[in-house]
Amino acid sequence: MNKHPEYEGWMRLALSLAEKGRGETSPNPLVGAVIVKDGNLIGVGYHRGLGLPHAEAEALHAAGSSAQGATLVVNLEPCNHDGRTPPCTEAIIQSRIARVVTGLSDPNREVKGGGHEVLLHAGIEVIEGVLEEECSHLNRVFFKYVTQRLPWVTLKIAQTLDAKIALPLPLSLRERERVRGRVQISGEASRVYAHELRAEHDAILVGVGTLLSDDPELTIRYAAPRGKPLLRLVLDSTLRSPVEAKIFQQTDQYLTWIATTDRSDPSKRKAFQNRGAKVILCSKDSSERVALADLLSKLSDHEIAALLVEGGAAVHTAFLQQGFADEYIAILSPALFGEGGLSSLCDTLPHPLRFARSHWNILSPDAVFRGTIAK
Amino acid sequence: MNKHPEYEGWMRLALSLAEKGRGETSPNPLVGAVIVKDGNLIGVGYHRGLGLPHAEAEALHAAGSSAQGATLVVNLEPCNHDGRTPPCTEAIIQSRIARVVTGLSDPNREVKGGGHEVLLHAGIEVIEGVLEEECSHLNRVFFKYVTQRLPWVTLKIAQTLDAKIALPLPLSLRERERVRGRVQISGEASRVYAHELRAEHDAILVGVGTLLSDDPELTIRYAAPRGKPLLRLVLDSTLRSPVEAKIFQQTDQYLTWIATTDRSDPSKRKAFQNRGAKVILCSKDSSERVALADLLSKLSDHEIAALLVEGGAAVHTAFLQQGFADEYIAILSPALFGEGGLSSLCDTLPHPLRFARSHWNILSPDAVFRGTIAK
Repeated sequence: MNKHPEYEGWMRLALSLAEKGRGETSPNPLVGAVIVKDGNLIGVGYHRGLGLPHAEAEALHAAGSSAQGATLVVNLEPCNHDGRTPPCTEAIIQSRIARVVTGLSDPNREVKGGGHEVLLHAGIEVIEGVLEEECSHLNRVFFKYVTQRLPWVTLKIAQTLDAKIALPLPLSLRERERVRGRVQISGEASRVYAHELRAEHDAILVGVGTLLSDDPELTIRYAAPRGKPLLRLVLDSTLRSPVEAKIFQQTDQYLTWIATTDRSDPSKRKAFQNRGAKVILCSKDSSERVALADLLSKLSDHEIAALLVEGGAAVHTAFLQQGFADEYIAILSPALFGEGGLSSLCDTLPHPLRFARSHWNILSPDAVFRGTIAK
Repeated sequence: MNKHPEYEGWMRLALSLAEKGRGETSPNPLVGAVIVKDGNLIGVGYHRGLGLPHAEAEALHAAGSSAQGATLVVNLEPCNHDGRTPPCTEAIIQSRIARVVTGLSDPNREVKGGGHEVLLHAGIEVIEGVLEEECSHLNRVFFKYVTQRLPWVTLKIAQTLDAKIALPLPLSLRERERVRGRVQISGEASRVYAHELRAEHDAILVGVGTLLSDDPELTIRYAAPRGKPLLRLVLDSTLRSPVEAKIFQQTDQYLTWIATTDRSDPSKRKAFQNRGAKVILCSKDSSERVALADLLSKLSDHEIAALLVEGGAAVHTAFLQQGFADEYIAILSPALFGEGGLSSLCDTLPHPLRFARSHWNILSPDAVFRGTIAK
């Protein structure tokens, strides 16, 4: 069943190296490379970030002249084009590597010219398809971006066991809530996870309803800072957002964009621009809201490959209904809110949703579900 | 903070031994014992089932004459009364054990006479309260049973991420469903777990609604058989159950009881009795249904200490509303059924529910939540 099981261990190492670049390489893929000779590891590398050397180049540099006659194992077909860095195929050929083992072909191949073919042509043995599914899953964001020119869209929801996202507070407490923001459902560990998720994405999106009810900061406070600024995006067809919302307080680490339609008041657009926010004027869908297809296409033009949608329920539902959601993350907390609790998207989702691939992660006292939506 | 940390490792061993008796000891507690001398383990034992030797007796037997001067570590205070087996205190004193380390006192002590005191009186050193919380949690069923004379009630629910328990099928498929029973939400691993749960309990209960819609067998097919027959119980205030339902097909391994009120037809009661089922006539609550307090008390009289309630939603809600639920188990499967899905108890639960203690267990592709309901 498995192709070339003898390389699977090395490929797993390449995948775990590739993973280290998460959050920094977008819209480039995550790539890890290992160089093996006579069963020994003689070099490793991974793509650390946009504009930095590719994984293959790093690994070849580490191996030095020992690379001659060795095997290079890399999760993605080496590039064969001059981009932000020189082509990897050239470096591989020059280093006299004997064999190249890859997970799968670069989906860019038609456009850019096949790395595999160039290597074969140079007399290098090429083995493709080792742990193909894992390699494909790791770079799902990249693959969608280069083949469809659309960002990979991940919906994130924090809920109780009975799929409630909030519990209305008694009036006296509601006063307090205005001051300190929304009541947290999730525990400490999953709050850290939620911030790590933000750091993994190029942009995070919330609807204007969330902005009005929660006034979130949408910042990364409990995770390592990113190399490039995080884009915070508000979906607001008629510009109901208050200009004094926290999200419009600009800093070096964050950008704020607001997606709207021609239903919004031009003077209000100007007011947001004066606050340093970028206003994205999108076409309208049949319900006169921001057309998600147009918005996603515009985001893609700005090299936004990974978009995290943090709600609320109406926004999640719109992405699901229109088929623009690729992945679903639910953080489940140990409580039942009962009939008084506010429901998540689940009461408005018009059709069942199943997952092609999913896994659970326990972040006590919560559990995190993460699944790729079956199309 | 922790009492006598030097004994915690041995107590954990005793707890894991005790756990092996689960499903066989009820209404006796789960007890494990280890005997240690000069830092070495010289004997272990656990209570294997009703009428079989107590853990202490097993461990002392294993240690033999080496027990002299040794330390006995046991999760529960040794018994000091003639019951189904002779008192353990006597055996401990005779074996010349020097020190007894326990997790906590037997809640029976007022009635039966303290084991700890007898040991102290015989010149044996007694250390109490090691891993007290864990020891208390392990025997939560037993403690409720002996102190309140009521069974420990665990609610079990299988649901999707959006807290739906079923998806109505299109009409053509519904025909098929009649033949093969309800569509499974859960995966293989959690179905095995669900049967293991049954094997851990003295009785399983479903409402008549579940009987009418699903005609479940409520048997243990994917787990090891139990030493004693499992009681299957139907809650049916007016005896709407069909006598030909699968649950009334009696075998050696199962008993079937049906709890009803005087609203049911006496001739129908007779019909169930003729099928080998026992009819429990209970008093009515304010809504003319089986009074759960009366039913639980009657179950306790029959040495039912652990009751698993498998639904449906109305039954779960009744147990929660009336404060008779102690533990909640949710098996979560990777799907969203959306607005077409049938809701679990969550839409009828009148107040929020929180958990005093909980944990998650991944049974891929599902996850299992198990929590003790905060009172």
